[in-house]
Amino acid sequence: MEKELSNAFRAEIILQALPYIKRYSGKVVVVKYGGNAMTDEDLKRQVMQDIVLLRLIGVKIVLVHGGGPEISGLMDALGKKPEFVNGLRVTDKETVDIVEMVLAGKINKSLVTLIGQQGGTAVGLSGVDACMIEARRKNEALGFVGEITKVNVSPVSDLIEKEYIPVISTIACDKEGNVYNINGDTAAAFIAGALGAERLILMTDIAGILRNKDDPSTLIPEMTVSEADALFNDGVISGGMIPKVDCCVEAIKQGVKNAVITDGRIPHSILMELLTDEGAGTLIKGE
Amino acid sequence: MEKELSNAFRAEIILQALPYIKRYSGKVVVVKYGGNAMTDEDLKRQVMQDIVLLRLIGVKIVLVHGGGPEISGLMDALGKKPEFVNGLRVTDKETVDIVEMVLAGKINKSLVTLIGQQGGTAVGLSGVDACMIEARRKNEALGFVGEITKVNVSPVSDLIEKEYIPVISTIACDKEGNVYNINGDTAAAFIAGALGAERLILMTDIAGILRNKDDPSTLIPEMTVSEADALFNDGVISGGMIPKVDCCVEAIKQGVKNAVITDGRIPHSILMELLTDEGAGTLIKGE
Amino acid sequence: MEKELSNAFRAEIILQALPYIKRYSGKVVVVKYGGNAMTDEDLKRQVMQDIVLLRLIGVKIVLVHGGGPEISGLMDALGKKPEFVNGLRVTDKETVDIVEMVLAGKINKSLVTLIGQQGGTAVGLSGVDACMIEARRKNEALGFVGEITKVNVSPVSDLIEKEYIPVISTIACDKEGNVYNINGDTAAAFIAGALGAERLILMTDIAGILRNKDDPSTLIPEMTVSEADALFNDGVISGGMIPKVDCCVEAIKQGVKNAVITDGRIPHSILMELLTDEGAGTLIKGE
Amino acid sequence: MEKELSNAFRAEIILQALPYIKRYSGKVVVVKYGGNAMTDEDLKRQVMQDIVLLRLIGVKIVLVHGGGPEISGLMDALGKKPEFVNGLRVTDKETVDIVEMVLAGKINKSLVTLIGQQGGTAVGLSGVDACMIEARRKNEALGFVGEITKVNVSPVSDLIEKEYIPVISTIACDKEGNVYNINGDTAAAFIAGALGAERLILMTDIAGILRNKDDPSTLIPEMTVSEADALFNDGVISGGMIPKVDCCVEAIKQGVKNAVITDGRIPHSILMELLTDEGAGTLIKGE
Amino acid sequence: MEKELSNAFRAEIILQALPYIKRYSGKVVVVKYGGNAMTDEDLKRQVMQDIVLLRLIGVKIVLVHGGGPEISGLMDALGKKPEFVNGLRVTDKETVDIVEMVLAGKINKSLVTLIGQQGGTAVGLSGVDACMIEARRKNEALGFVGEITKVNVSPVSDLIEKEYIPVISTIACDKEGNVYNINGDTAAAFIAGALGAERLILMTDIAGILRNKDDPSTLIPEMTVSEADALFNDGVISGGMIPKVDCCVEAIKQGVKNAVITDGRIPHSILMELLTDEGAGTLIKGE
Amino acid sequence: MEKELSNAFRAEIILQALPYIKRYSGKVVVVKYGGNAMTDEDLKRQVMQDIVLLRLIGVKIVLVHGGGPEISGLMDALGKKPEFVNGLRVTDKETVDIVEMVLAGKINKSLVTLIGQQGGTAVGLSGVDACMIEARRKNEALGFVGEITKVNVSPVSDLIEKEYIPVISTIACDKEGNVYNINGDTAAAFIAGALGAERLILMTDIAGILRNKDDPSTLIPEMTVSEADALFNDGVISGGMIPKVDCCVEAIKQGVKNAVITDGRIPHSILMELLTDEGAGTLIKGE
Repeated sequence: MEKELSNAFRAEIILQALPYIKRYSGKVVVVKYGGNAMTDEDLKRQVMQDIVLLRLIGVKIVLVHGGGPEISGLMDALGKKPEFVNGLRVTDKETVDIVEMVLAGKINKSLVTLIGQQGGTAVGLSGVDACMIEARRKNEALGFVGEITKVNVSPVSDLIEKEYIPVISTIACDKEGNVYNINGDTAAAFIAGALGAERLILMTDIAGILRNKDDPSTLIPEMTVSEADALFNDGVISGGMIPKVDCCVEAIKQGVKNAVITDGRIPHSILMELLTDEGAGTLIKGE
Repeated sequence: MEKELSNAFRAEIILQALPYIKRYSGKVVVVKYGGNAMTDEDLKRQVMQDIVLLRLIGVKIVLVHGGGPEISGLMDALGKKPEFVNGLRVTDKETVDIVEMVLAGKINKSLVTLIGQQGGTAVGLSGVDACMIEARRKNEALGFVGEITKVNVSPVSDLIEKEYIPVISTIACDKEGNVYNINGDTAAAFIAGALGAERLILMTDIAGILRNKDDPSTLIPEMTVSEADALFNDGVISGGMIPKVDCCVEAIKQGVKNAVITDGRIPHSILMELLTDEGAGTLIKGE
Repeated sequence: MEKELSNAFRAEIILQALPYIKRYSGKVVVVKYGGNAMTDEDLKRQVMQDIVLLRLIGVKIVLVHGGGPEISGLMDALGKKPEFVNGLRVTDKETVDIVEMVLAGKINKSLVTLIGQQGGTAVGLSGVDACMIEARRKNEALGFVGEITKVNVSPVSDLIEKEYIPVISTIACDKEGNVYNINGDTAAAFIAGALGAERLILMTDIAGILRNKDDPSTLIPEMTVSEADALFNDGVISGGMIPKVDCCVEAIKQGVKNAVITDGRIPHSILMELLTDEGAGTLIKGE
Repeated sequence: MEKELSNAFRAEIILQALPYIKRYSGKVVVVKYGGNAMTDEDLKRQVMQDIVLLRLIGVKIVLVHGGGPEISGLMDALGKKPEFVNGLRVTDKETVDIVEMVLAGKINKSLVTLIGQQGGTAVGLSGVDACMIEARRKNEALGFVGEITKVNVSPVSDLIEKEYIPVISTIACDKEGNVYNINGDTAAAFIAGALGAERLILMTDIAGILRNKDDPSTLIPEMTVSEADALFNDGVISGGMIPKVDCCVEAIKQGVKNAVITDGRIPHSILMELLTDEGAGTLIKGE
Repeated sequence: MEKELSNAFRAEIILQALPYIKRYSGKVVVVKYGGNAMTDEDLKRQVMQDIVLLRLIGVKIVLVHGGGPEISGLMDALGKKPEFVNGLRVTDKETVDIVEMVLAGKINKSLVTLIGQQGGTAVGLSGVDACMIEARRKNEALGFVGEITKVNVSPVSDLIEKEYIPVISTIACDKEGNVYNINGDTAAAFIAGALGAERLILMTDIAGILRNKDDPSTLIPEMTVSEADALFNDGVISGGMIPKVDCCVEAIKQGVKNAVITDGRIPHSILMELLTDEGAGTLIKGE
Repeated sequence: MEKELSNAFRAEIILQALPYIKRYSGKVVVVKYGGNAMTDEDLKRQVMQDIVLLRLIGVKIVLVHGGGPEISGLMDALGKKPEFVNGLRVTDKETVDIVEMVLAGKINKSLVTLIGQQGGTAVGLSGVDACMIEARRKNEALGFVGEITKVNVSPVSDLIEKEYIPVISTIACDKEGNVYNINGDTAAAFIAGALGAERLILMTDIAGILRNKDDPSTLIPEMTVSEADALFNDGVISGGMIPKVDCCVEAIKQGVKNAVITDGRIPHSILMELLTDEGAGTLIKGE
């Protein structure tokens, strides 16, 4: 962007965000971070800028992350061979340790650090801290792949109250002291639900829900939960979109006001989503 | 501004304000409102927008106003003839009543209303409420022209604590139940001092302090209190600028971090002053 | 009163107020101030003394005032000719400005000042501050004559919490930024209702509700809401008493414990009403 | 007092107390109760009325009592023979038990009950509760006669904070679990000092300090601590007055604003002392 | 116990109490103190140790006591002859004074002192303070023997909040200023109910409820309220056990989680009851 | 331990801990966890039991851990070859990533989980969260080996306030977003200092400071800071003990009351240290 923009012009633009700031000020917004926005260094920095700005102007932002490629990277480096049952990865104890190290050790702390560099104050948490996310085995054959049974959200709200930005690694615990690998989107939906969030933002690598998946001009900008049900039945929501939309619907059932599937490949997609008149992607809301 | 600005572009501009937002978040800023910014309807609305936005993003903004032309207007309408002693207006009981009605009645409530229309929540106060500003007669011959002797700032800080925007009419009281007409800039300086404000902004109808008053390119963007003293002696600060600079120096002596003489004729001058890299006008600070 | 009253005697009299003090301590009492009590300087000072004393001994007193003769005075002085539609005064923009100046400027601040002189700490508010009293046009032909649609009582309770005496001017706002002239008694009833007041006191220039309006000995000291209904039907409550009693009934419907029509011409009528065994006037209560 | 006093008259008298109420509202006043005011049933009831009223109008009143004749009464009934050393009563373990039973059991609870009957809420304490008053033996030969070494005033301020009226029996404890009989006036002075009281009131059976003890017209209404010193030297303060004045001086040294020796034989002497222009007795204050 | 116990062994034993500490931490436990535990000096000291320890580790302990033999002792000493109506002691005014002196004076203060010596901080209360326990005459012929009508538990919870150990004497008041002798166990049950206690512990001089009262091996360790009903009908609960069990049942009806009849003759029976796997005595609980 | 220990015996032993519980209740104790206590599974579980018990009885416990053998394990598995400069390990970016994963990912979460299994509620933190521990490079050649420059302890005290057990991984951050490997003992000393801890406990694999390192009977149970200085000079404190003692001295300089070098090989050494009469190891205290 050109440096010579006049300050008057800048002021004007900032002011146009006023109604949006007013809407989200003091509200909880949960961002599930993932996809390209997590692998591209520029996008990464921009997401952290957005989050710091939003916290500063009063939005109670919570960042939830999974791991993705970095887990596979460390597994490769350690010579772990992937094993599958019905297309799902078998997660033995050693794999869970790797997941935990990558998520709660490497990625969590690097996000906390990036937020710090942008001027924010973040504290990392995981589903294991204060046994915040409880899970049970999904399927014996899959090992430590967990299904969430309960979320105790106090550690998150305690951090929000103290004005920290909570950054949450999506692993889970059980009463026996096991650690589980869990689905990050689902975890974000449960956390948003438990917090009574104003909005859940799922960052993805697609433009949103398209009526015709090959034609970006067929984007559905907004749908209700029952419209989503119809689109499931019609097969419009298919493939990788199914779990994403399921997640949004689950969040709304648990009390989130609305949920949005955003295109994380676009710079500052979160800020645009919350502070301008047109969000990117598809918004799902109650009736 | 053209409607077709992309949201990405908007997001980028908002983000560039982040370091400034960070600096003023949670801090008290006192704005002395006056001049063209108070008579021009467009400027007026813009000032209120700025104030609402700043409060929303966490700046504890306090608006202090005088009256100016509207007082003379009502006096004319009521057939009051002005009387002067050594060039200063004699203020009899009837005149003070007019001042009180115009300031605390008409202007104060119209500012409170304008802020409400922009989405903010303002509560009007005057120096008479809770006998917040105490004064004594400046000169027997002048009648109810007051000199501030004491500021009890609790009503202002009580309103700030409850997140209202205080809008303050600059009249004063004494123990005998008299009301005084006082200088608005001085009142703003005393209030800013008592609140330990981060910044006092005096809105004026000039570009700032010019080294050569006929050459706008000689604007002095920043000076310390002792540099101001030197400029007084050199005659660079002269005429109408003297009381403005005096006011800023007084505020700094009472504990305000810095004070700025801003050109209120420029739209959104307050927002630019606080949220961009170049303020308009002249900033005065401690050593 | 004779100076030589013994202190023992004084102590005895103060002690007889103990059960009444106990009853109102910590409770909200809304006083609608008006009539002679507002025009006679001695009565005025006495009302303010009563209010200061009551606040000091723990009664959460709220003073609501209208304007009356002073509005007409300023209109005359400004050469405004009254215009009527069906006997109701047409209120154009200029008239509303005058109302605002007289109420929120002159009268409000003079009451705040008088309370200060008696040793109390008052803060003025109007229905326009924080858009506390919302109204809509009652009748297009009447201009800015408003009908209350909603009361947001937070600014009043915030001031009570900080132990100030709120003094409220009865004007109203709407979302478009208009200001309305409203009925003061109704405003007091709505405010008392929103605060869940223990008692609403309407100060009037009559002795109370008389069974025979020409015979003071036929005063009805107390009636229930349903008895009031019967007296409306019987024509006992007639003329100027109708809106007063309506107001009391409205307040009780909105949650006020009881409401009283007091003779404000009697010195210290408020104090007598609250701290002695016989109130002046007529008390209306729920069933 | 005649029943037919008009309410207007009553209101007027109550209002004349306003400046006094204002002065003591929110302040701590410690009353050392004793003498006739404690043995005469009418006076007793009147003292409790005064205390309830003062608490209700915001004075943080603390009642401290000793025992006097009732202790001797129970000793007689139990056939205990008094024994003296240098004119001071020897207090053995059995005697201390009697003191404790009479003070903390009988008198304390009867005062708490009387306050309750007058509409107040009192909680009894003794110097033994939370080991509030620590003492050591004054003289081996005297047994359990104690000299105060330390006051831990938290239980009293905890009760004040909850708006109870603390009623305190003047016995003391030590680290070994002994209970001591202590001087009630001194205990009251220490408690008032530890609370930073506004005033200590010692109720006695004399009119105050008289310059000529046989001439009531020679009452000294007020003296400073240094004037008291001079009067000790001159022998004006003599006999039973010496410990009373000593006590007042001690209280002032410990931070009490002023102390007064009041004539408890006069009905409502406390109320008169605090709420009217002329106190009964002698007031002692710092320089 | 031998001194040479290793610290490792001590640590191990303390740790075995962890689950019990966890269970009672932050909960209210009301102990009705009586029987041998109150007359034997060693047992007495041990009970106080238990109470101090429990408070320190976070149990909100409340000690309720009656008087027993000491009341008779003082009556004898004063030459009062007991009088009976249908086997119940007639309690005249003089007797109630004795009860009050012994309970609220002697015993209460000695317990407060003992707790202090063990390192705890106790404050004594009685049912008369703040008229906490209200009662009415049970039977005209019996004089001041009271039946509890209402418990106002605020003074107790205020003391708990400030981390004192409340020690409560079981006497009661009424609105007329009378004091009543009441049943200590019932008072404890009412207080526990009003506090929503986790457990009520009644200390007695028996091993618990025995199926065969002559065979200690037939102890019933636990029963529900309905099982207790059955045992009443079967005559298993008989004699002195009837009021004890009634009390427990009453407490549970008023909201106490469970109640236990403990053998107070065993040293540290309270600690064992709460911190080990086997309580002494019989526990009664809801269905 | 034999199961048949009587409950009376257990109660007795618990009670003997009362004075120690009293001493540490409400105080902060920082435990630096390491050595055998961290590698032996039984010792590990016992340490967590101790910590849970201490938190439960009111000690504000903070657990600080390093990594030790597990870091080397992962480095080996990833084929990283150690490189040394003057005997100190060179820490490149990749190594710091490994340290972060092992400490903040694996070990931290396993400790949090273990505490949860023992009934406690822990939340993990690292020096990177909220940039709590700031460091700079110790030596360019060593890469990311850091020297602590500042500790911002708010996240720890925020967690303590909410009654969580903070578990802290000793890595550090700087303003440029680098992560550093830091000395765990030093980090614990700085954290204890910033918290104004009552005690710092360093768990080691030695018995304490021995006057003759080959003779356990020459253990020095206690020394002052200046005695420690003398022992440094005498060479009694030598080898691996030097940094441990330095650490303790540093902690005391920063305001910790005392610091102890404990033998972590002994089961329940922390509990014994705090709750019994003889600590294990050497205690260092101010003069």
